[in-house]
Amino acid sequence: MKGVLRCSANYIPLSPISFLERAALLYGDKVSIIYQNIRFSWKETHQRCLDFASALVQLGISPLDVVAAFAPNVPAMYELHFGVPMAGAVLSALNTKLDPTMLAVKLEQLEAKIILVHHQFVDVVLKALDKLRKRKFKLPTLVLIPEEEFDYQTPTPINAADLPTGSLNYNQLLEMGKLDDQFEIIRPNNECDPITVNYTSGSTGDPKGAVYSHRAVYLNSLAAIFNFNMEMTQKPVFLWTVDMFRCSGWCYTWAIAALGGTNVCLTTLSAKVIFEAIALHKVTHLCGKPIILNIIADASDTDQLIPLPSRVEIIVAGALPAPKILMTVMEMGFNISHGYGMTEVLGPAIVTPWKPDEDHHLSNYSNGVHNVMLEGIDVKDSNTMESVPFDGKTMGEIMFRSNTVMLGYLKNSEATQEAFRDGWYRTGDLGIRHPDGHIQMKDRAKDIILSKGEAISTLEVEAVLLSNPKVMEAAVVGQNEVAFAFVKLKEGCFASSKEIIKFCSENLPAFMVPRDVIFGDLPANSTGKVQKSVLRERVNFIESQDR
Amino acid sequence: MKGVLRCSANYIPLSPISFLERAALLYGDKVSIIYQNIRFSWKETHQRCLDFASALVQLGISPLDVVAAFAPNVPAMYELHFGVPMAGAVLSALNTKLDPTMLAVKLEQLEAKIILVHHQFVDVVLKALDKLRKRKFKLPTLVLIPEEEFDYQTPTPINAADLPTGSLNYNQLLEMGKLDDQFEIIRPNNECDPITVNYTSGSTGDPKGAVYSHRAVYLNSLAAIFNFNMEMTQKPVFLWTVDMFRCSGWCYTWAIAALGGTNVCLTTLSAKVIFEAIALHKVTHLCGKPIILNIIADASDTDQLIPLPSRVEIIVAGALPAPKILMTVMEMGFNISHGYGMTEVLGPAIVTPWKPDEDHHLSNYSNGVHNVMLEGIDVKDSNTMESVPFDGKTMGEIMFRSNTVMLGYLKNSEATQEAFRDGWYRTGDLGIRHPDGHIQMKDRAKDIILSKGEAISTLEVEAVLLSNPKVMEAAVVGQNEVAFAFVKLKEGCFASSKEIIKFCSENLPAFMVPRDVIFGDLPANSTGKVQKSVLRERVNFIESQDR
Repeated sequence: MKGVLRCSANYIPLSPISFLERAALLYGDKVSIIYQNIRFSWKETHQRCLDFASALVQLGISPLDVVAAFAPNVPAMYELHFGVPMAGAVLSALNTKLDPTMLAVKLEQLEAKIILVHHQFVDVVLKALDKLRKRKFKLPTLVLIPEEEFDYQTPTPINAADLPTGSLNYNQLLEMGKLDDQFEIIRPNNECDPITVNYTSGSTGDPKGAVYSHRAVYLNSLAAIFNFNMEMTQKPVFLWTVDMFRCSGWCYTWAIAALGGTNVCLTTLSAKVIFEAIALHKVTHLCGKPIILNIIADASDTDQLIPLPSRVEIIVAGALPAPKILMTVMEMGFNISHGYGMTEVLGPAIVTPWKPDEDHHLSNYSNGVHNVMLEGIDVKDSNTMESVPFDGKTMGEIMFRSNTVMLGYLKNSEATQEAFRDGWYRTGDLGIRHPDGHIQMKDRAKDIILSKGEAISTLEVEAVLLSNPKVMEAAVVGQNEVAFAFVKLKEGCFASSKEIIKFCSENLPAFMVPRDVIFGDLPANSTGKVQKSVLRERVNFIESQDR
Repeated sequence: MKGVLRCSANYIPLSPISFLERAALLYGDKVSIIYQNIRFSWKETHQRCLDFASALVQLGISPLDVVAAFAPNVPAMYELHFGVPMAGAVLSALNTKLDPTMLAVKLEQLEAKIILVHHQFVDVVLKALDKLRKRKFKLPTLVLIPEEEFDYQTPTPINAADLPTGSLNYNQLLEMGKLDDQFEIIRPNNECDPITVNYTSGSTGDPKGAVYSHRAVYLNSLAAIFNFNMEMTQKPVFLWTVDMFRCSGWCYTWAIAALGGTNVCLTTLSAKVIFEAIALHKVTHLCGKPIILNIIADASDTDQLIPLPSRVEIIVAGALPAPKILMTVMEMGFNISHGYGMTEVLGPAIVTPWKPDEDHHLSNYSNGVHNVMLEGIDVKDSNTMESVPFDGKTMGEIMFRSNTVMLGYLKNSEATQEAFRDGWYRTGDLGIRHPDGHIQMKDRAKDIILSKGEAISTLEVEAVLLSNPKVMEAAVVGQNEVAFAFVKLKEGCFASSKEIIKFCSENLPAFMVPRDVIFGDLPANSTGKVQKSVLRERVNFIESQDR
């Protein structure tokens, strides 16, 4: 149209950096971060991030260089989500459960220029660096995040001599940053430039580094605010029970700044920590893995806080525990929502508020609300790309298209192209479409068991197993069209395979009942997901012995 | 970065069309629109918008053609905000207070291909078309929105013979749209493509058509949700007291769809209508001009609803009425916020919750919260572009830069370039910066009176005048460095100039006290803003007579 003009007055590349700048301006004196005895204001957080960014530039970090981090949810970890992008660089917060070998592989793939490491994980990082050194890889500079990271005077408990030459510590960097009072934020030229790399759990093969853009996380941070069942707009007090290395803390890292809320940081997860934070800081929202619900439900009388100052909102992503546990947590004063998503879509893309009248403890997302930024959501035939009918039975692959989908997998064009084949992100999950348009997730495509023409959803069988009061954990895998169940019993409980099979028969159609039930600990990967491939091997082994 | 790929899986041009599609999927059976005895569901609203878009394409409307509308806040007007963009076209909802001459000028500038007109405004539109016909301008097709727009059987009260040949009615178009069951939405190729043209009030010269992009309104709709003091995320029931032709209803047209809320439509504004809607439909949010507050405060006992089912949130933009009125409205159960903005920034860009302890009834936005999408906000020297110091006294021009700023003025490159000079949108308003970073608006640049080196903010003088219990309306203009006040008294009130001047002396520094007070009706333009240029002429006239 004539007369219009795109310029810096009306077009600014979207970036969550602006959320922090606005928080510093509007909520400057409000508490941004609480950690132990530490309190920062938004003005201070803003300044610290600027200082850190300035130091990165002084260290020679160039736009799009990767800065890696290996730390729990401490304030420095929060700050990196702004400080690194403010230097034009890309943050990769790595899973602290990685062993030195896995960590080395990732640092090499990332070509990380710097690795920030929390003092409690220094050993793992040093071992990983050793491996890289042997492979003649240019080592990243180690930056230590000391325990008392906020007291410049306190010496770090780590002996500096044990660290590679040239190592620094976080506080030194902040001091260094102050030296350049002319520092200016290096903003993205293009809003589709990368801001973080988040590794997938690798439950479906090699871990892949999902690259997020400034645009995607800007939009998803705002969408994440709407994901909560209850309003999150009134300056939430957010307890960091979700790992910041998990989908950038599901983007709440940036969302809390957008709202001018308060971040309550922590390094350990326990009932005591959760209830203390609620009592002391009036926590309003938290999220993470479903294990949080078990932790809350199992709180001892002395740890519990009754009543809560006000209801607390929780979103968990992953298989829900037994309804009894959900009920207990709800009655304690928490509202529970269940998220469905994956690293590739920046966290939960569909969120379902859990209601106590649901008899099934496995929410299947069939009442789920997909996030407001998710432009396309469908269940399609993987080959023809035809949408399945809204008949509540035809199975297809769940697919998304959205500005909140990753840019792709780092240095893995093949995997990227496969994930985006035909212009949709393919989740690898199977689902059906109900007549009302809602999507119900059935199973991972590779987990589903085809038995005499019928599809057994392992998730549905697991749900029944978990509803048995003796069962702590359960996983089902298929072998030769038959289901096998792996069960970990609760402490002090006893059960036979026969007893559990009988329980399944009473609660499932005959074709879905597992042939056998095997007891013991379930093997989990670094993100806590059960490794079904290991279980399949165990079945093979048992079956071969039986023969 | 290697491995990444921008494609339709992860990049979709932002457009509010997706909000409607999502609402139809998630909230299909929920009530989308209430109007008199009419109820639509989101599924129906979605289908009606699709049908309308399909009809537009059948009528030969091409992408970026303009469809004009001249109607109050009826359901059809809401539907146009989706239906027109779904055909790739641009909507221009015009102020229904325009006279035929002004309307003709706009239709010509817009090169409107279609004008939708509500039956009650047919006369004005026919006269405007007559003017265009005389100027050999290709006439837009007239589409009548009949009173009973939802009943295909009811004949329109307008005699079809009185309309130009080829005129249609809205219901015919919806029927026509159904004929093409292959219709597909024409989505923007580029998210910066225009979606609406909203005319400014023209208080600063000729009315200008501010062009909004899909991207800007998508982002601003979400930002508008956060503008409300209380949460708006729980499916609001929104009463349409703000004109949809005003900044696209401040973008709540699209925001309500994003939330799956309910739109309560209306054609007239009165205490009875407001309280009935609250009682019947449990309205949660409304907004508009400050006169709404007077209407509510003046409600008769029979019209009032006490107590309200729950507190209702109101945002008003414009000069607030006296604190007593605000207090009354607050005590009736409403929470009040005060918005500062303009057509060029898509409505209120800064919103200040009003608190009853404020002695000043003119909120000066100094506690205001600028919207979460507003990337840049500053007070600058208009010439040097230097930011003013945070000293609470140095005056400068308030400037914004944001993705929620218009694309520019339709066919007025000169005005566009002037508005965006040096890469910021210049509001033409003067303000100061407080030490805490908050901005305080002082006055329109052209209204401020410079008196012996001191700046008199006409807004501040007006605020004091309005705090006089006898004063209904007030406006202040300057002449030769002196302030003159124009006052409209409340019904049944009497006052002399001397009395009002004395009142000002008691409440203002001497240099700010008006030299004279002139009583009578205040001249308003089509958007209800006082025409200060007319008042300045009156002062000239009075002064010349005095000489």
